[in-house]
Amino acid sequence: MVNTEQSDKGQVFKSDSSSSDGFPESSRSSTPGPDSDRLHEKMRRRIESGDKWFSLEFFPPRTSSGAVNLISRFDHMAVGGPLFIDVTWHPAGDPGSDKETSSMMIASTAVNYCGLETLLHITCCNQTKDELSRHLHKARNLGLKNILALRGDPMGDEWKVEEKGFNYASDLVKHIRSEFQDYFDICVAGYPTGHPECDSYKEDLRHLKAKVDAGADFVISQLFFKPETFITFFKDCRAIGITCPILPGIFPIQGYHSLRQLVKLSKLQVPQEIKDVIEPIKDNDAAIRNYGIDLATDMCKVLLESGLVPGLHFYTLNREVATVEILKRLRLWTEDPRRALPWITSANPKRKVEDVRPIFWASRQKSYIYRTQDWDEFPNGRWGNSSSPAFGELNDYYLFYLKNNYSKDELLKMWGEELVDEKSIFDVFTAYISGESNSHGEKVTCLPWNDEPLALETSLMKKELEKVNRMGILTINSQPNINARPSTDPIVGWGPEGGFVFQKAYLEFFTSSENVPILLKVLKNYKTRVNYQIVNVKGENINNAFDLQPIAVTWGIFPGREIIQPTVVDPVSFMYWKDEAFALWIERWAKLYPAGSPSRQIVQDIHDNYYLVNLVDNDFPFENCLWQVIDDLFKLKASENTCASMTCDVTVRP
Amino acid sequence: MVNTEQSDKGQVFKSDSSSSDGFPESSRSSTPGPDSDRLHEKMRRRIESGDKWFSLEFFPPRTSSGAVNLISRFDHMAVGGPLFIDVTWHPAGDPGSDKETSSMMIASTAVNYCGLETLLHITCCNQTKDELSRHLHKARNLGLKNILALRGDPMGDEWKVEEKGFNYASDLVKHIRSEFQDYFDICVAGYPTGHPECDSYKEDLRHLKAKVDAGADFVISQLFFKPETFITFFKDCRAIGITCPILPGIFPIQGYHSLRQLVKLSKLQVPQEIKDVIEPIKDNDAAIRNYGIDLATDMCKVLLESGLVPGLHFYTLNREVATVEILKRLRLWTEDPRRALPWITSANPKRKVEDVRPIFWASRQKSYIYRTQDWDEFPNGRWGNSSSPAFGELNDYYLFYLKNNYSKDELLKMWGEELVDEKSIFDVFTAYISGESNSHGEKVTCLPWNDEPLALETSLMKKELEKVNRMGILTINSQPNINARPSTDPIVGWGPEGGFVFQKAYLEFFTSSENVPILLKVLKNYKTRVNYQIVNVKGENINNAFDLQPIAVTWGIFPGREIIQPTVVDPVSFMYWKDEAFALWIERWAKLYPAGSPSRQIVQDIHDNYYLVNLVDNDFPFENCLWQVIDDLFKLKASENTCASMTCDVTVRP
Repeated sequence: MVNTEQSDKGQVFKSDSSSSDGFPESSRSSTPGPDSDRLHEKMRRRIESGDKWFSLEFFPPRTSSGAVNLISRFDHMAVGGPLFIDVTWHPAGDPGSDKETSSMMIASTAVNYCGLETLLHITCCNQTKDELSRHLHKARNLGLKNILALRGDPMGDEWKVEEKGFNYASDLVKHIRSEFQDYFDICVAGYPTGHPECDSYKEDLRHLKAKVDAGADFVISQLFFKPETFITFFKDCRAIGITCPILPGIFPIQGYHSLRQLVKLSKLQVPQEIKDVIEPIKDNDAAIRNYGIDLATDMCKVLLESGLVPGLHFYTLNREVATVEILKRLRLWTEDPRRALPWITSANPKRKVEDVRPIFWASRQKSYIYRTQDWDEFPNGRWGNSSSPAFGELNDYYLFYLKNNYSKDELLKMWGEELVDEKSIFDVFTAYISGESNSHGEKVTCLPWNDEPLALETSLMKKELEKVNRMGILTINSQPNINARPSTDPIVGWGPEGGFVFQKAYLEFFTSSENVPILLKVLKNYKTRVNYQIVNVKGENINNAFDLQPIAVTWGIFPGREIIQPTVVDPVSFMYWKDEAFALWIERWAKLYPAGSPSRQIVQDIHDNYYLVNLVDNDFPFENCLWQVIDDLFKLKASENTCASMTCDVTVRP
Repeated sequence: MVNTEQSDKGQVFKSDSSSSDGFPESSRSSTPGPDSDRLHEKMRRRIESGDKWFSLEFFPPRTSSGAVNLISRFDHMAVGGPLFIDVTWHPAGDPGSDKETSSMMIASTAVNYCGLETLLHITCCNQTKDELSRHLHKARNLGLKNILALRGDPMGDEWKVEEKGFNYASDLVKHIRSEFQDYFDICVAGYPTGHPECDSYKEDLRHLKAKVDAGADFVISQLFFKPETFITFFKDCRAIGITCPILPGIFPIQGYHSLRQLVKLSKLQVPQEIKDVIEPIKDNDAAIRNYGIDLATDMCKVLLESGLVPGLHFYTLNREVATVEILKRLRLWTEDPRRALPWITSANPKRKVEDVRPIFWASRQKSYIYRTQDWDEFPNGRWGNSSSPAFGELNDYYLFYLKNNYSKDELLKMWGEELVDEKSIFDVFTAYISGESNSHGEKVTCLPWNDEPLALETSLMKKELEKVNRMGILTINSQPNINARPSTDPIVGWGPEGGFVFQKAYLEFFTSSENVPILLKVLKNYKTRVNYQIVNVKGENINNAFDLQPIAVTWGIFPGREIIQPTVVDPVSFMYWKDEAFALWIERWAKLYPAGSPSRQIVQDIHDNYYLVNLVDNDFPFENCLWQVIDDLFKLKASENTCASMTCDVTVRP
């Protein structure tokens, strides 16, 4: 009736449970079993369950601003749930280097910072064995687990066999298997109409068989224009004993010129009926794109209905619209609001057990990943299990995956071309929270600590946040308390179905040094209900943390699982975060203004004199008391000011 | 305003928090900081906070049944919260051996199985350095952390200095410090009237100073009869520079003969006014004991009021009544219902991080500790963190700390002198749950799986449990669901104040193989809401555990802390527990009857054919559905029986 497997103890375990963890298998990593996070294993499970997937191909950008845009495209397209993405190898672009536009670095960013299962192309022709090994070792060290092994294009016009060199992709596959055993999942390319340089279609099929026999796990096909082309190819592959998954490469026609260029490179023939449609509309980009979408959608439908195709591979040309539209029409684009954890997990295998992070980096997740990239172990289950954290210095504000998309001018419009006083700063924070325009009529859609507009969850507390920011409680992170909401809740839910999620209310803000002693007086009344930590840029640290222990502030209880507590307030890590939080005042904001300018000085003064405060309300089942704390602070401040002025009055009078 | 300490990062941490974890410091261990679980550190904190303590001295028993009784006395007296207990060294009783009556084994049991901070006496005279080292190494390996270093009594009447031997307790202290550095906390004895063999009181004080200078952490005094004796002694100690804690040894007079014997051994003079009271009532034990209680209570009051005494040490003579009465009168006996964790933590230092256990051993905690004694690491935070568990075999049912106090006759009266059929067994389970007498008029206060009467918590579900046991759902473990009850709740609370505790409903029972397929049909309707595992003695294992992951079934959320989840249902450990659970049918029950007897066969048949089932209701915020599951089982069973008999009727008719 059910699968049986032998346990260590030699006892039979029958299990009714499915091997999936209740999430659609996608490029975003989730808590995996020993081998279950291997790409070919994910494919196997999806094939077994009949759950079709898609994957997305990108090429490395030419410029560093192109890199920033591509990374944010990864983030956008990750939402639809690709099984993996792949990044082409660009021999002319120093593809294995540390340049931010290199194939290697783009693929590494996709894995590590965007949490995407990523397949890196590598070509072997014109490269020595040592060079290839260096690339492969580097890829492994960066956390890449999948390689698309290609021969590559010849340097000259004609391709010549090199003695002792890598002449075929199968040589590269063999080399990877002999040097890295099973570490990498390997993909190879298949040519539905035969490789253009091959003598015959049949011989090319034999080449493909040789590549698979050398150790490839799956095949992605070159583009084609008619579904029959692929279906014939697929059947021919099966006939000669190629049993692994074979994925059709879909090329949505997105413009006249890109089609021409691709055809030239791939030496493919565009069918006459397609030419007949395109030629008359060649100057109408929108019309061509719409045609391309219709054409590809129809082709994909035929392929999926054939029952031969478990997933579709898209040549995106680094563009979003056409591919997303096709996927939506095919109902393969599934914006599942459910997340495995409240934050985006990295796909680097060494981080696969990671399931706890400090809440401080909630809006700067890439920075957190960067600052912890050298850790050997990642916290699993408990934060406290990881020995005292060593965060890398963050002086690398130029790193492209930490950049946002805004120009200096745009930032100045949002944050003020000229600041008059602290109040100008309060107004920027308030405008960011409220979503209303600032005094110059500009919407404030980011802050130095938050590259994105206010999270949906945060907007649950918009009214209160707006009120306190107006008074100089400059909030940079917060969450409401949540008591046993279903894990499927569209705003605060995460984790598998059937669970319950919880949060302690959290508030983190900058405030003036004048407010701190008053806040401390107020906090005394809240005793252990409220945990607080108050620090300034010099590292003065006032807190009521018990034994400097971390506090779980987000957790979930699920069927058949241990408790997951993905975010904590860790008093030790907070000291590393505060370095970053204070530095952002200068790096992102003050430096927009000329040295010596009054505007720059205003930001500098806040950086030098303000305190960064975090508050946790431990009584999560009751109404969040943190707003009351702030209210008490201003009431006490007002009464002290009144007393002070009264006293003053009294003493002045004779 | 507050303490400041340097963190690793060189930043100043100011903390308002106290170093205690909100629990009165007692012998039961709790989650500790790096050194905070050292006995002298606990004393330091109690002295700083002015929180007086008490400690209890026991001697090793002569017989193995005496050992069983002493261990259960430890468990009773642990309830009052002693800071530590100590076990005397009995040179004539092979004190360092593995005998269950040896000083070493009694002390080890107190630490490991009763969770008591324990001080082991060791005497050095007439022992070689090697012998002493062996004892000390063994003590360390067993998890003992505190030694009371004594010279011991001479073998003959007079004591002679031995060349190269250990002649003074200070030699032993030096030896421990040189061989074990700071591993042990060391206590030494002080003699308020001078050691009987010492030339003068002053010289004896110098000896004490030498022992402390050699590395002792604190002093326990010999008994005395008047508070002034101790107070003078204390001041004299301080005057010559003994600065460590000095605890008065309190000897409650409990009987005429024990007093005479003690006086003979200790060569102390009983003051005339005490003799005058005692002599006339020397045959009236109760009168003497009452007098002893009054006398000791008065003396303790004077000592405590002197402000010199941070804690009181009681020579219990292995008895409970007098000492407990005195402590209650002094209000030092504090039966704090709060527990650090739902189960009793072991005081062995290698288990100090342990905070997760499978729920299965809830009523057999000593067995769990025994079966995991060889583990090098204990689960902290998560069960899953501990790699696949290796449980020791449990063939050692004779082990004294696993024994209960009942005789074979008592057990037969409770569980039936003669069993008629399965129903006789159902009745025993039902009587245990209901607390009502069995058919022979006997109360059933234990079962093979439960040495104690029903837990308070379990009685919350008494009505439902009684009903299902009557029908052959033979429950051996269960807990109700709990949703955010205060951690101070007297029945289900645990952990520090200000927290909230939670439970998933759990039910574990034996039932007939006939019920299993019906139960499985019923469980299908509950989908992921109910996790189940159903096994028989041969190891057949039917479950819907996801990936064989453990399920947290008890957890707590506290101020300023990560989440604690002290009990889990772990499908892998369950296979080890089932060996024990099934074996108990035979070892504890079947073997009460002669081989070949029908009664024995009835128990044997259940052992061979029944299944052990565990059920978890994951929807803890809603009403426990497990009773509904059982109800559904019997309804379906009834309807299937009806159908079956109707079908039968039809086929029989012509």
